[in-house]
Amino acid sequence: MKSHPFDKAIKLAPQEDGTWLGHTSAPYANMVGPFGGVTAAQALNAVLVHPQLLGEPISLTVNFAAAVANGPFTVQARAARTNRSTQHWIIEMIQAGQTVLTATAVTATRRETWSLDEETMPASPMPDQVPLPKVEAPMEWIKRYEVRPIVGGLPEVWDASGHSSLSQLWVRDNPPRPLDFASLAAIADIFFPRVFIRRSTHVPVGTVSMTVYFHANGQQLTEHGTGYLLGQARAQAFRNGFFDQTSQLWSESGALLVTTHQVVYYKE
Amino acid sequence: MKSHPFDKAIKLAPQEDGTWLGHTSAPYANMVGPFGGVTAAQALNAVLVHPQLLGEPISLTVNFAAAVANGPFTVQARAARTNRSTQHWIIEMIQAGQTVLTATAVTATRRETWSLDEETMPASPMPDQVPLPKVEAPMEWIKRYEVRPIVGGLPEVWDASGHSSLSQLWVRDNPPRPLDFASLAAIADIFFPRVFIRRSTHVPVGTVSMTVYFHANGQQLTEHGTGYLLGQARAQAFRNGFFDQTSQLWSESGALLVTTHQVVYYKE
Repeated sequence: MKSHPFDKAIKLAPQEDGTWLGHTSAPYANMVGPFGGVTAAQALNAVLVHPQLLGEPISLTVNFAAAVANGPFTVQARAARTNRSTQHWIIEMIQAGQTVLTATAVTATRRETWSLDEETMPASPMPDQVPLPKVEAPMEWIKRYEVRPIVGGLPEVWDASGHSSLSQLWVRDNPPRPLDFASLAAIADIFFPRVFIRRSTHVPVGTVSMTVYFHANGQQLTEHGTGYLLGQARAQAFRNGFFDQTSQLWSESGALLVTTHQVVYYKE
Repeated sequence: MKSHPFDKAIKLAPQEDGTWLGHTSAPYANMVGPFGGVTAAQALNAVLVHPQLLGEPISLTVNFAAAVANGPFTVQARAARTNRSTQHWIIEMIQAGQTVLTATAVTATRRETWSLDEETMPASPMPDQVPLPKVEAPMEWIKRYEVRPIVGGLPEVWDASGHSSLSQLWVRDNPPRPLDFASLAAIADIFFPRVFIRRSTHVPVGTVSMTVYFHANGQQLTEHGTGYLLGQARAQAFRNGFFDQTSQLWSESGALLVTTHQVVYYKE
């Protein structure tokens, strides 16, 4: 089987000093530098491939400290604390001797317990009933995802007419790829900036920090395979240069796989 | 003016090696060890008192890596990256040579922009119309907060009758204390575990990771003074040993000051 561009994008080579060497990916290029979701997945992957890894990801927080330049980078992942069933990671991504990303992650072995999804999937048409978007942003990484916007797609006209930041969409990798923790981390960052949707106005933006909570375990992701995810995102507050985004990703069968949040810089 | 117990609790003494020495606080004791909200505030305070600090807190993520023992601790706060208007911090709390907490924070200088609260404050009776709770948990830290539960208070009978994890409440420091970033970080952790509310069943729990987004700036906090905050919390998913919590804190006048999330371990 031919390797998927996402697998190539997150590939890390072990270095003698225990760090990992990676490289930004042209297929996942953003306007300037790489798509942040893939940068987050690269940071998480330094934990996933680590020989000391215990369990599976529970939470991931990535802080985008500086623009990542196209080219190579180093990732350091350190298990700051390993308990019986949980592990705490500190991660840094370095380019040219400077920190460009800081992150923490928690991994854990899970056991079966009473479980319940309180936030149920919104009623939505099935993916094959939702057309592809009329407007497509020009960035290369957009082509790596099949996104079918249900509500709150990218404005067709930037006329400051927005009235809600809510977006709902179907999404999966393009071409399809079996879902795993790394691809989920990237898809958590798939949503256009809420300020675009709320204002129908284009202003400079950049995600500052993103947190991903993984509710699914590996077995559930394997069962999901290449199916679509229903994504929902909205902002709660826009205030003096920073807004937040709160999002969910459900499987087609309605299981809540991820809840994720971010805080984003905006100008004007 | 007599010092407030919270100010004593978060006090850090600079050490020669650039780290900070703190001590857990008996007035904020939990069942075992300290109230996690104060531990989070101590971690943030290592940034707030740091001579290199740029701007004000935008986001904070704390990971509770191990039980904090009653007694002294050391906090290390390192500015991993300082940009023109943003700064990225990595924080570790150490006890007996072991990491007990990892954290990251982003601080920034803000400028006035178009602003909007999309998540509006739920209609609620005013604080003086909401009685104090009939049931009070026995932990010492509970006495440091004046909490007036509107909906979703601690169950009066643990009869597995719960049907929603939603809580709404008024809260402020007890005795009242002017709101600041450190106290906001602590209050972000004020809510009882969602699994208690949803199930009306008592199971062992522990917060694993908490993220706080600060939408307010220092001036807004000063204006808020000792007023009440309206807090709202609910869970989105409970799955195989971990559930999430998504929360908001509004000022009495309806400004969204904080949005915050956490993921919590639970047994059974």
